[in-house]
Amino acid sequence: VRARELGIAPGVLPTGEKNDITDVAGVRVGHVTLIEGNDIRTGATAILPHDGNLYQSPVPAAVFVGNGYGKLAGISQIAELGEIETPIVLTNTLSVDRAMSAIIDWTLDQPGNERVRSVNAVVGETNDSGLNNIRKRVLTPDMIREAITSASTGPVQEGAVGAGTGTIAFGWKGGIGSSSRHLPENLGGHTIGVLVQSNFGGILQVDGAPVGERLGQYYLKDEVASDKADGSIMIVIATDAPLSSRNLERLSKRAIAGLARTGASMTNGSGDYVVAFSTYRQTDPAAAQTENDNMSPLFQATIEATEEAIYNSLFMAETVDGFDVSTQSPRRVEALPLDKVKEITGAN
Amino acid sequence: VRARELGIAPGVLPTGEKNDITDVAGVRVGHVTLIEGNDIRTGATAILPHDGNLYQSPVPAAVFVGNGYGKLAGISQIAELGEIETPIVLTNTLSVDRAMSAIIDWTLDQPGNERVRSVNAVVGETNDSGLNNIRKRVLTPDMIREAITSASTGPVQEGAVGAGTGTIAFGWKGGIGSSSRHLPENLGGHTIGVLVQSNFGGILQVDGAPVGERLGQYYLKDEVASDKADGSIMIVIATDAPLSSRNLERLSKRAIAGLARTGASMTNGSGDYVVAFSTYRQTDPAAAQTENDNMSPLFQATIEATEEAIYNSLFMAETVDGFDVSTQSPRRVEALPLDKVKEITGAN
Amino acid sequence: VRARELGIAPGVLPTGEKNDITDVAGVRVGHVTLIEGNDIRTGATAILPHDGNLYQSPVPAAVFVGNGYGKLAGISQIAELGEIETPIVLTNTLSVDRAMSAIIDWTLDQPGNERVRSVNAVVGETNDSGLNNIRKRVLTPDMIREAITSASTGPVQEGAVGAGTGTIAFGWKGGIGSSSRHLPENLGGHTIGVLVQSNFGGILQVDGAPVGERLGQYYLKDEVASDKADGSIMIVIATDAPLSSRNLERLSKRAIAGLARTGASMTNGSGDYVVAFSTYRQTDPAAAQTENDNMSPLFQATIEATEEAIYNSLFMAETVDGFDVSTQSPRRVEALPLDKVKEITGAN
Amino acid sequence: VRARELGIAPGVLPTGEKNDITDVAGVRVGHVTLIEGNDIRTGATAILPHDGNLYQSPVPAAVFVGNGYGKLAGISQIAELGEIETPIVLTNTLSVDRAMSAIIDWTLDQPGNERVRSVNAVVGETNDSGLNNIRKRVLTPDMIREAITSASTGPVQEGAVGAGTGTIAFGWKGGIGSSSRHLPENLGGHTIGVLVQSNFGGILQVDGAPVGERLGQYYLKDEVASDKADGSIMIVIATDAPLSSRNLERLSKRAIAGLARTGASMTNGSGDYVVAFSTYRQTDPAAAQTENDNMSPLFQATIEATEEAIYNSLFMAETVDGFDVSTQSPRRVEALPLDKVKEITGAN
Repeated sequence: VRARELGIAPGVLPTGEKNDITDVAGVRVGHVTLIEGNDIRTGATAILPHDGNLYQSPVPAAVFVGNGYGKLAGISQIAELGEIETPIVLTNTLSVDRAMSAIIDWTLDQPGNERVRSVNAVVGETNDSGLNNIRKRVLTPDMIREAITSASTGPVQEGAVGAGTGTIAFGWKGGIGSSSRHLPENLGGHTIGVLVQSNFGGILQVDGAPVGERLGQYYLKDEVASDKADGSIMIVIATDAPLSSRNLERLSKRAIAGLARTGASMTNGSGDYVVAFSTYRQTDPAAAQTENDNMSPLFQATIEATEEAIYNSLFMAETVDGFDVSTQSPRRVEALPLDKVKEITGAN
Repeated sequence: VRARELGIAPGVLPTGEKNDITDVAGVRVGHVTLIEGNDIRTGATAILPHDGNLYQSPVPAAVFVGNGYGKLAGISQIAELGEIETPIVLTNTLSVDRAMSAIIDWTLDQPGNERVRSVNAVVGETNDSGLNNIRKRVLTPDMIREAITSASTGPVQEGAVGAGTGTIAFGWKGGIGSSSRHLPENLGGHTIGVLVQSNFGGILQVDGAPVGERLGQYYLKDEVASDKADGSIMIVIATDAPLSSRNLERLSKRAIAGLARTGASMTNGSGDYVVAFSTYRQTDPAAAQTENDNMSPLFQATIEATEEAIYNSLFMAETVDGFDVSTQSPRRVEALPLDKVKEITGAN
Repeated sequence: VRARELGIAPGVLPTGEKNDITDVAGVRVGHVTLIEGNDIRTGATAILPHDGNLYQSPVPAAVFVGNGYGKLAGISQIAELGEIETPIVLTNTLSVDRAMSAIIDWTLDQPGNERVRSVNAVVGETNDSGLNNIRKRVLTPDMIREAITSASTGPVQEGAVGAGTGTIAFGWKGGIGSSSRHLPENLGGHTIGVLVQSNFGGILQVDGAPVGERLGQYYLKDEVASDKADGSIMIVIATDAPLSSRNLERLSKRAIAGLARTGASMTNGSGDYVVAFSTYRQTDPAAAQTENDNMSPLFQATIEATEEAIYNSLFMAETVDGFDVSTQSPRRVEALPLDKVKEITGAN
Repeated sequence: VRARELGIAPGVLPTGEKNDITDVAGVRVGHVTLIEGNDIRTGATAILPHDGNLYQSPVPAAVFVGNGYGKLAGISQIAELGEIETPIVLTNTLSVDRAMSAIIDWTLDQPGNERVRSVNAVVGETNDSGLNNIRKRVLTPDMIREAITSASTGPVQEGAVGAGTGTIAFGWKGGIGSSSRHLPENLGGHTIGVLVQSNFGGILQVDGAPVGERLGQYYLKDEVASDKADGSIMIVIATDAPLSSRNLERLSKRAIAGLARTGASMTNGSGDYVVAFSTYRQTDPAAAQTENDNMSPLFQATIEATEEAIYNSLFMAETVDGFDVSTQSPRRVEALPLDKVKEITGAN
């Protein structure tokens, strides 16, 4: 079940209709999931800002790096031009090259792109080697292309799927999660949608409740360095608010606040990245850009939707058996025990 | 009372002896508080990294800007050289020039600085115009110099004092707060101390408990834009860990996670700044710099100490009557009702 | 004489009418020059983006830091909000506080600003202690205010005047210089104006000619560390092109290329800052923002105008006798010998 | 011939023995060049910081982005950790994915890396589609791996080779170029080596002489937007000076000054990137890090070596016949006419 079905409703703002990133009109999400034998548990997830020619109609965009132990591709061109011109693909750490290949080939193949000579592929990743034999590098560009071509307008599949197939968060099974907020008309009437690939550690809090401590599973529990909280999170934010790339960067910074509220430890080994884009050129091209003074409700919406998307990634994930590369042995990662979470949060 | 006396103990790591920034050996803090008539409620707070000649023995340092609607002086030279060469002074928004004057004059006057021709004064601020007639600009460089010259090794005075005399947080009286964490020997044995000047808004959570929502006082409560959560926070981090300026910058980013956990909305109008420095050249000059791989416990300590320092700034502040510049009328800002907080958090 | 009168005409684009920053409509420049006794040679220069209420009508703006050994005030708020809300004042290193005081007080005093509670003063500086007894701190806020209130639409006074009264560049007398470029209509028809305060070292090239080497005066000439090239440059760029703050930041980066072409060594001790703003909201508020693809001619214009402004700062400066703080003795800094420059450059 | 053989010797500092990047002890360079039929003119160039296990012994490193219209892979992890853990590979814009594949596979295969689960491949590119049918994507990871495995300690092959096979600079044939500077003992005695992949436009100056204008071939010559100066440059800096990542970042900024002196227009479409690393942990692991105050000669050396490396990339390149993707037709790009350059520069 999703967090909200258990009464977990972070923040004060209303959600969008589906309570996921596809509440932002035009945004599409696709997954490819690869499960093979006892040791392959991986995949890819594609987010498409709109269904037109993305290269010819790029979207205003920005990136914020919470902690940069990661391989996000495309980062400097987004910063320079303030735009994204391709799908955004999430996958595992050692498949970034393959996802770039998929994006480049797909882009060159789109009608109207016959003379395109330069493609800034945007690929994020987290490391699923706790459940996936990542060194085998079995994901191919063709598989990843399926995530792009199968993308649809929702609802988003969550949990151990796509790029979240083999990820781990707070010691439990993580994965893909999503959530949204829809601002009232007097605050602009816009929608913020967030999708996460959760794969990090810390001391889990659920809407403030100390779930990690109560369940005895958290970073530094035994005050030994071996108790790693490393890992990463990729956060993608979509909005139809007419934001400049500068204000999209500011927006993306706020996702880190949502992350912080779940108890993330933001360790050295974590790659915490936020990619934000706006679809307004497709949905309302004549809109005047949102002024600085009107950004605050969008910031609050981002914090709330990010927090809830992370809970959804945990709540929707089921127990997975896989292979741990560091120990070279089988490993089971349990789903978060929702009955106990319910008890601890006092949700009803 | 301080948060911990009410049983509020964020995180999992032990505090330092005094549980404030002066637990980092050599660090000194001084306040000057200015209360005049019905409308002046302001002051300044100085943090001195060590008691030697700061200009001749600068400390490794870094700054992180959470949201840059603020006037932090000294920022680009700290980034370029990775050092701070003066006291750090916090004050109100329209007194940054005066605090710079105080720092420049004090530095030129120190024995050994007779040929000094350049001083990079570091001054942070938040806007206390909700209780202080800030436009009168009554703080003088001489007054602010008192904060520097009176600085001592603690314990730190908290609440409505110094630069926190007129500040407001989450709609209640904010101010100066401090906290520390001392890492066990197997995690390095170092100390992290944090001092904050709290003056921001959002939806207050106390160690996860929804205090703001329960007390009916929070950002966007009535979903109207007039309900401003603007404001700012200055966060100063001291440590004796032998950190490079790059790792101090990473450390300073983590303070924002502590801020986020208190429910900050990080609005457009907020100036959220973190200044971090290390005293290791004074206490252990031959120490090898901490490696990236050993940073995570220091990050966790920073998150925890920042969160607790913010609670202390609220818990230690008393109700203040002053003058609201925006309405040009008297205003009372209540202290956080600790009995109710205790009830809501279930602390005992 | 100005560089162009000697046939020095860097680049390929035409200048504006006056060939200075006031070719950008509405931009005003004012100086205050302070010469006292044998040891005070300093001043301040104010640049006002337009003659309306700057606080109520801020201009899109950006800052780029070439080398950050400097004290530029206002930097983080410009980055966050993409705007400047005050005059820009240049002065000496130890008078930044005084210039902030002048800007704050002047802003609070403007009609319409009666409720203003926050002012982000923008102050740049270079260190004139080679000719000026900077430690005396004799410039007052009232004097600096004169630079603001006396600002006019040009032509700009250049050389040893205002903030350039005591500066030194490449071992000769530097100071204030300005230049502009006006793009042909098919490249947008916009104007770029640049003003510099030159106070740095290196190996002077004039439009490519090795003036520094030929005259035997340059950085590392004797390959000894004592031959310091330290110093700084403040560069202010104005344009009427309708640029976003992101593209203004990109524009400001190009000024460093103009600086490089003069032979600057960009040493450790240099504070090389660029502040760029656009006046389009005043002159053409309905203009669509310039697209990335149309930025290149503006970049070229910026490089050329910066290079020429630096030459003007040298060519227009006369020999000055003052006081060197580092040696505590009188010092004469010669004007650049223009006859020899003419010979070396082979101009006309 | 190389620039210096024609008497072109930018700057005032002496070169290293070979006057290329391999003057920095341990640094190795390898090329793979791919010429097929009438339309394939491309390749890859690998720079290896040392001959040990790069993943287990990463080098301090930094990146500076001059203009970010490019796809440099690896950027955020270098910024976060201050290190490079792989070879640096340069190639064409649409082969970054393939170069990443090569680096990842090669790294996983190195002895001692059997448990490695994360690889931050560093790949730079410029767009050779003016001479190379880039859309065919014929370079394979296996070919690129040859550049890595064949790398040697010099001298570096320059001109139309490796990643420079199909590049164009200032309208003439560009390519790979390299140069170095060796500081005298009293300035530290360290070596700076630079390697460039030149593929950009502007108005060529050679050691100050207006070669582009005299030969009538330059950006904005006809003041029409169609006269594109787009393109890019990748600059790699190696040094044995014991620099922190912060000072390596400062060093990398100075390369842009060298670039500027050649007349680069730094247009919108340019991807101008600098990657800098230090080998001191291999050559002098106990060395104390260079202090800020001693950086200036290294900065000057970087400016000079970058300028000369660019000249070498042009001077060593021969005329190439290839295929222009934008016009879909054959294209010849001439080598720079060195006899005329000699005449214009007055070199003898």
